[in-house]
Amino acid sequence: MSDTPDSAVRTYIQQHRAAFLDDLAEWLRIPSVSAQPEHEEDVRRSADWLAASLRETGFPVAEVWSTPGAPAVFAEWPSGDPAAPTVLVYGHHDVQPAAREDGWHTDPFEPTFVGGRLYARGAADDKGQVFFHTLGVRAHLAATGRSAPAVNLKLLIEGEEESGSPNFRDLVEANAGRLAADAVIVSDTGMWSEDTPTVCTGMRGLADCEIELYGPDQDIHSGSFGGAVPNPATVAARLVAGLHDEDERVTIPGFYDGIPPLGDAERALIAELPFDEAAWLSTAKSHGTLGERGYSTLERVWARPTAEVNGIGGGYQGPGGKTIVPSSAVLKLSFRLVAGQDPDAIEVAVNQWIAERVPAGIRYDLTFGASTRPCLTPLDHPALQSVVRSMSRAFDGAKIRFTREGGSGPAADLQDVLGTPVLFLGISVPSDGWHAPNEKVEVDLLFKGVETAAHLWEDLAAAAIG
Amino acid sequence: MSDTPDSAVRTYIQQHRAAFLDDLAEWLRIPSVSAQPEHEEDVRRSADWLAASLRETGFPVAEVWSTPGAPAVFAEWPSGDPAAPTVLVYGHHDVQPAAREDGWHTDPFEPTFVGGRLYARGAADDKGQVFFHTLGVRAHLAATGRSAPAVNLKLLIEGEEESGSPNFRDLVEANAGRLAADAVIVSDTGMWSEDTPTVCTGMRGLADCEIELYGPDQDIHSGSFGGAVPNPATVAARLVAGLHDEDERVTIPGFYDGIPPLGDAERALIAELPFDEAAWLSTAKSHGTLGERGYSTLERVWARPTAEVNGIGGGYQGPGGKTIVPSSAVLKLSFRLVAGQDPDAIEVAVNQWIAERVPAGIRYDLTFGASTRPCLTPLDHPALQSVVRSMSRAFDGAKIRFTREGGSGPAADLQDVLGTPVLFLGISVPSDGWHAPNEKVEVDLLFKGVETAAHLWEDLAAAAIG
Repeated sequence: MSDTPDSAVRTYIQQHRAAFLDDLAEWLRIPSVSAQPEHEEDVRRSADWLAASLRETGFPVAEVWSTPGAPAVFAEWPSGDPAAPTVLVYGHHDVQPAAREDGWHTDPFEPTFVGGRLYARGAADDKGQVFFHTLGVRAHLAATGRSAPAVNLKLLIEGEEESGSPNFRDLVEANAGRLAADAVIVSDTGMWSEDTPTVCTGMRGLADCEIELYGPDQDIHSGSFGGAVPNPATVAARLVAGLHDEDERVTIPGFYDGIPPLGDAERALIAELPFDEAAWLSTAKSHGTLGERGYSTLERVWARPTAEVNGIGGGYQGPGGKTIVPSSAVLKLSFRLVAGQDPDAIEVAVNQWIAERVPAGIRYDLTFGASTRPCLTPLDHPALQSVVRSMSRAFDGAKIRFTREGGSGPAADLQDVLGTPVLFLGISVPSDGWHAPNEKVEVDLLFKGVETAAHLWEDLAAAAIG
Repeated sequence: MSDTPDSAVRTYIQQHRAAFLDDLAEWLRIPSVSAQPEHEEDVRRSADWLAASLRETGFPVAEVWSTPGAPAVFAEWPSGDPAAPTVLVYGHHDVQPAAREDGWHTDPFEPTFVGGRLYARGAADDKGQVFFHTLGVRAHLAATGRSAPAVNLKLLIEGEEESGSPNFRDLVEANAGRLAADAVIVSDTGMWSEDTPTVCTGMRGLADCEIELYGPDQDIHSGSFGGAVPNPATVAARLVAGLHDEDERVTIPGFYDGIPPLGDAERALIAELPFDEAAWLSTAKSHGTLGERGYSTLERVWARPTAEVNGIGGGYQGPGGKTIVPSSAVLKLSFRLVAGQDPDAIEVAVNQWIAERVPAGIRYDLTFGASTRPCLTPLDHPALQSVVRSMSRAFDGAKIRFTREGGSGPAADLQDVLGTPVLFLGISVPSDGWHAPNEKVEVDLLFKGVETAAHLWEDLAAAAIG
């Protein structure tokens, strides 16, 4: 399929390894937390830094694209070959909130190498996985002797993924012409494990909301008034408790509408993976499994939708006690969605469900964030086979298996707006701790990502994806 | 019953009004918050200040009593008459937490007079109501020409009431001899309203607990793991939601054991009060009623037990969203108890109920605070009639009606350990905002308290309570 000598790619990567890690560390030092207004300027700095780095890599075009929120970065490197297909790489340069006191052993924004791992917020999600494409394309050129990539290469690296990508769809729609591609490669997922390289075929979608519940105008004495007025913290708790039935199925009417049954073939592919519940629980830092009756753990996180409480708060949470009926309570809920579900319909259903359950005497505000659609790639798509082949070469001929991703990304917007299939190239492993304290990336895997990217463009150019 | 000329009492009080308010303000400036360790020294200063003030009032004995927690103040002023009964006044010098950002219009520890009201944390609960006894006993002496009170007067003013009085029962047991009395007067309650003076005949008890729930060892990604592991915030919410059935009755087995039915006579006394739901809701700063089916609002807060969530917290509560399964959650629950219920039995029942409901994979710690027993005084007790008469004189001959108190105090410990009936003399009104921002006391009512106290000792000496 490809004439690129694998050894030439490896040699080039080895020569540029140290400089690549230095550059990545510099980027990781920028705390580009899109959810926190005080980091607005840092997110902008992160975009500028990336655009400059892409120009240095050789991209003739590297622009910072403003949005009503945080900026994205767009870069383009034409192949020069009129027959070459066009590929758009997607990732994001913003990161989750992180603070030392959350349990980090090191400063989350001071990248630290320990035992073959690089610890930093964003190391795996997603700066590390965006950045492997810079050295990847250079290795591709060096090994093939080309002066431009074998495909028309485009990158779109957004700045609001960790905030639900509120402006992403508009951005893609407004720039659909410049973003047009024959395939999208999303580098914002992971693989099964260090030993079992995999390609992801789909992501869950996401809808999230915040519910603020207001009872008494101020905290009131639970002795004088308790037992006779509605308590907003109780109402919040009843909403959460009412989300699931005894089988841990979501009770919101219409929630499961449109989801095709999980077929035997798909269940068999999932069952083929070397799943070890104890190891999975260790990665999940959890001490038991609990989920929808009738589905395995992997099916629950990959192929079934959820309703989850991400945060709940109300009343006195300080030391000691305070005998009050709280004035207010807040709930942060999120819903992971699978192919067939429509985020807009979910929002309508949740709205109605909440409205029917908040009692008289409690006022509430329900706010939905921007939603992300689920997506799923056909297993027989030629571009997917290119990803599998390139990855296998990087992993010394290993068999590549298939996973799905329980997390969410705006990949489905690219699929919907651009009308292109979406493929996933990710080298992160579950223990990398996305969104958690002590996020890290395995440095050796990071370079497998570089190597896969170095093989991919020529393989895709040869595949019939245009 | 008494020869004290009411006008002499009023004249004396009028002459000392300004100095009394100055002194009270000085005491209110001491932030004696017993629940917050950083105020430990302030609670001690508050005790020292009160002991000094009581010596200045004329008490020959005024001591600070250490406890394993915050200190109490004991004072004693013998009558000199071998036939005089002994009366013990109970109150507390510690206060609830308060911070400007909770919604106070003034500094909670800088007493402020506005339109006949004195705003400060502790103005009504309970420093104001403790302090009226100092001018009260002076007025009693001045008006009767006595050099010592008509009763052997004792005061026990504790420093941990707002923290559940964890050391109070031990303190009373250890000093039962010095505290021995024929009646206890509790000045830590209130009355119906400015226009409807009332005497309280009982208080609810209190048991409270904190439940910490631990799931994943750290916050984990809700996409990667959500839907397959137990979420401690969901478990916390399910516990809260499970506390009540559809009739808002507490579901914990055995919770209602031992409670005698509320009789028709008692219900009639309660129904006799000029209850205005809209006004009550306004005082409660609430926008609806909700409580145990089959009982009126007053019955719910005075004569029925409750289970209330005072605080709930878990996961992300900051701005924006964070798609995690939280690592932990916390619940602060309290149970108001009525006569017939045993706090120890409630603790056992709650322990078992929680144990049966926390799923595998979630670890928890359940900690009970010190409990307070409920108490109830017989309506025909002669000392209760003395309180009613003294109050009627202070309120210009008004009819005194009966209430109960929904709140809790360690009065029942005094009743249990000392074997004495407990009476209540309180002049606070529901709008005083106990435990809430902008707590205040009505200054005119504060002086009605002084006046009632000034009449009470001679009336009690004449009543057959010894």
